[in-house]
Amino acid sequence: MALVVQKYGGTSVGNIEKIANVAKKVIRTKEEGNDVVVVLSAMSGETDRLLQLAQKAADEPDPRECDSLVSTGEQITVALLAIILKAMGHRAKSFLGFQVPVNTDNAFKKARILEVGTEAIRKELQQGGIAVVAGFQGVDEENNITTLGRGGSDTSAVALAAALQADVCDIYTDVDGVYTTDPNICGNARRLDRITYDEMLEMARAGAKVLQPRSVELAKKYNVPVCVRSSFTDEGGTLVTREDKDMEKEVVAGVTYDRDQAKITVVHVPDRPGVAARLITPLSEHNIVVDMIIQNASILGHTDLTFTVSRKDIREATRIVSEVAKEVGAEKVEIDDNVAKVSIIGVGMISHSGVAAKMFETLAHEGINIMMISTSEIKISCVVEAKYTELAVTVLHDAFCLGEES
Amino acid sequence: MALVVQKYGGTSVGNIEKIANVAKKVIRTKEEGNDVVVVLSAMSGETDRLLQLAQKAADEPDPRECDSLVSTGEQITVALLAIILKAMGHRAKSFLGFQVPVNTDNAFKKARILEVGTEAIRKELQQGGIAVVAGFQGVDEENNITTLGRGGSDTSAVALAAALQADVCDIYTDVDGVYTTDPNICGNARRLDRITYDEMLEMARAGAKVLQPRSVELAKKYNVPVCVRSSFTDEGGTLVTREDKDMEKEVVAGVTYDRDQAKITVVHVPDRPGVAARLITPLSEHNIVVDMIIQNASILGHTDLTFTVSRKDIREATRIVSEVAKEVGAEKVEIDDNVAKVSIIGVGMISHSGVAAKMFETLAHEGINIMMISTSEIKISCVVEAKYTELAVTVLHDAFCLGEES
Repeated sequence: MALVVQKYGGTSVGNIEKIANVAKKVIRTKEEGNDVVVVLSAMSGETDRLLQLAQKAADEPDPRECDSLVSTGEQITVALLAIILKAMGHRAKSFLGFQVPVNTDNAFKKARILEVGTEAIRKELQQGGIAVVAGFQGVDEENNITTLGRGGSDTSAVALAAALQADVCDIYTDVDGVYTTDPNICGNARRLDRITYDEMLEMARAGAKVLQPRSVELAKKYNVPVCVRSSFTDEGGTLVTREDKDMEKEVVAGVTYDRDQAKITVVHVPDRPGVAARLITPLSEHNIVVDMIIQNASILGHTDLTFTVSRKDIREATRIVSEVAKEVGAEKVEIDDNVAKVSIIGVGMISHSGVAAKMFETLAHEGINIMMISTSEIKISCVVEAKYTELAVTVLHDAFCLGEES
Repeated sequence: MALVVQKYGGTSVGNIEKIANVAKKVIRTKEEGNDVVVVLSAMSGETDRLLQLAQKAADEPDPRECDSLVSTGEQITVALLAIILKAMGHRAKSFLGFQVPVNTDNAFKKARILEVGTEAIRKELQQGGIAVVAGFQGVDEENNITTLGRGGSDTSAVALAAALQADVCDIYTDVDGVYTTDPNICGNARRLDRITYDEMLEMARAGAKVLQPRSVELAKKYNVPVCVRSSFTDEGGTLVTREDKDMEKEVVAGVTYDRDQAKITVVHVPDRPGVAARLITPLSEHNIVVDMIIQNASILGHTDLTFTVSRKDIREATRIVSEVAKEVGAEKVEIDDNVAKVSIIGVGMISHSGVAAKMFETLAHEGINIMMISTSEIKISCVVEAKYTELAVTVLHDAFCLGEES
């Protein structure tokens, strides 16, 4: 008998009929002899509806109250699933963040999980019940309701699986697994049977939207096997797991892209110690995430500093950086939001040389200019003009032979 | 400086604009130098919407899960009011049942309050904040969310006022106080400035819908002054309080009616000990509330037993009673759902004779037949044909000189 954690997203619980479908899947897993813990998101659109209500109430609604407000979304879906499971003749019980408890810090709207209690859920499982847990929410040490940020239900599910030492954490979504690239761009994109935590993490950070990066970090830390599956079919699925000696190391596992990129260049900055920090620090103080940062070699005591941010942050980032640029004596600030990031990811890169060269040549061959490059052990990202996004993805996918054999 | 508990019902918090109006009233009370604890209901219609969702999920939805589901209604309104109060520049914090905590028994959907914690709310008040508390909900000793039953927010408010030893508990509704009778029936109905707990209790039980009877019981037990006021005007209000020696004892304070009545008569029952219990007990086992019970004098060892129930329960009650009637050898069961109950209420009745006689004469003079009579120290109720309801209320209101002087 295995202990299975299953997480269903907003589109899987969008109305009573869909919740009843989830109930059937849960019951099937239970009847196969497993203990089942189900983690749910809010009905699709509900979190946004509640946030709009808060926005209507105040321009900058209080974060503590927002969290208490939006946490009702998951409270409703877990109650409804428990009602349906019981009506179908099964023992079941819903658990909210404070009832599990999922203890978090008090960073409202983006709280981090500190500890997950297991006693109450284990008791329900021991009595033959199905535990239905509200994702996305927790409780801080002062009994305030907190939420984990967008996509937080993935993190809830993995944290529960880790705490309960579950055998697997199934993440049900509207796709049936992780693909070598976006099937909407490459018709021959191939579903991966397995992928390592590190590859999944880089893919998630590089723009693949299947799993929230934090949930993958957590799965890696506690070695939780995560399976990405479809809510609508029983076929397929991709297992996200640690690197296995038997596992064939793909040189490149996938190609991702991220159009949510904007590039800011501070031109002709005096190259003194601490200048880069003075330019970048105020951004993180305003919660603007800086993705890639590149500094040219210094020429006659001056340099150019280029970095990328999310497009939604471009106005605020430009305003902040322009102020500092003036202070430090830079020549000017240039912005370009007509860019995209294309990345190749694979654990095999570590031991294969020539992967970067092949990527650059492939892009050059199509006349695609590379504006920025950043690399990690298992990832190479290039910033290119936005109009080349699909072309770059397609040629890279072909060049590394990632497609289905036809 | 006084400590004021204010409760606002569903129509007062029906949308963001109305909640903003509540915020203004709350702030005014705060700026007058008072500590303020606000208790809110869900937006009007929201509790029904959630119950319908539960009903769509299962014919008999699990009560524990229903309570967790419907408690989101108040969770939303208290968060929104706290957001608005803070945006208006005031310190404020919302409290859910488990955060206060409002400890209850585990009778889901009709839980009773056992104890109300005061520490968290006092701390907020001491720091100059406004405490915004979700009505209707509590938490049992196993951390399950419970609800107090329909109108439970009145009870929440009074229980909080009692625990915090508040100076007054203001109940804001869509009427500006308690009237001598329904102003829709008697145009000259008069608003009462004061009424005793006992009178209010009898009026609530006899059909007046201003306050939930349980909240009045609680107010009486802990001697909490309750003021019924309008959300829309600052005028008027009725103070519900204990009997005061200086208070002029009204012989009759008000006339009420209740159309939600149905009459069941078990004809020609063998008059043996325990027969009445055998007929009535199964009804309470099915949660059917029996209001008035009358047994005729025994004639030749047989009697007729007549009682009233809520109209919604008439089918089930008839089915249950018919079975038992057969077993005990009664002749037949007759039902009549074309009846109403008309009552007069007043603490002065105790010391005034002739009140009952005047009531019966007044009804007889209009040709209204009295089918059943029941009395308490401060109330006389008569069951009459439903079509005479308005007439009976009007003539009694006049007979006891309750109207405005014109």
